Amino acid sequence: MNCNRVVLCGLIVEKEEIRYTPAGIPIVNFKIGHESEQIEAGGKRLVQCEISSVALDKVAQDVNRLKIGDYVKLDGFLSRKSRMSTHLVLHVNKFELKR
Amino acid sequence: MNCNRVVLCGLIVEKEEIRYTPAGIPIVNFKIGHESEQIEAGGKRLVQCEISSVALDKVAQDVNRLKIGDYVKLDGFLSRKSRMSTHLVLHVNKFELKR
Repeated sequence: MNCNRVVLCGLIVEKEEIRYTPAGIPIVNFKIGHESEQIEAGGKRLVQCEISSVALDKVAQDVNRLKIGDYVKLDGFLSRKSRMSTHLVLHVNKFELKR
Repeated sequence: MNCNRVVLCGLIVEKEEIRYTPAGIPIVNFKIGHESEQIEAGGKRLVQCEISSVALDKVAQDVNRLKIGDYVKLDGFLSRKSRMSTHLVLHVNKFELKR
C-alpha cells in the first residue's frame, strides 16, 4: 500500500534559488501558504498552514519560474525532511499555476 | 480554491485516549507512521514520515477502537496545529482499516 498523495492549493510565500544535486539534478526548495474552509464533523472550519515543499528535475525548472505570491495547485507526496528531521516536506510531482 | 486533500496509508504508532471538546464532541489525537516507495523525477524514492493526526465526532469514535499497529488508509486535510504552532496535523474525515 503505497498511498501517499497530497493535492493542495496556495500561495508561494518563500522560494530559494535553484541549485543542483551532486548528480546534476535541478532542485528548488520553496514554501506554500494555504488557507481554506474545510468540512469536519459536519461543520465548516477555517484551515491555515504553511508547508515546506521541494521539486526536482523538470518540475524544479518550472517552479523556478514562479514568483512569490503566485497561486498554485500542487500534487505530490509527503516525506520527512531527512533522517535527522521529522519536519514534513511536500515533494511536488505536478503543479498548475492558477493565477 | 479550497483544495487541501491528503490520502495516506500507514500504521497507528501512537493513540491518545478519547476526550471531549467543551461542546461535547468526541476527539482523538493519534500518530501514523508511513513508509512507501514513491516516484520522483523519474526515479524511485524510499519515503518515511510520521504524521500527527486528529479525528472528531463519529470518526473519533471509530478511530478510538483502533489499536497500535493497525494498518489504515486515512483521507482528510492538513492544517497547522494551532495559532501558536506551525506543526502540521492531518485532520481525518474518513479511514479504512486495511489489516
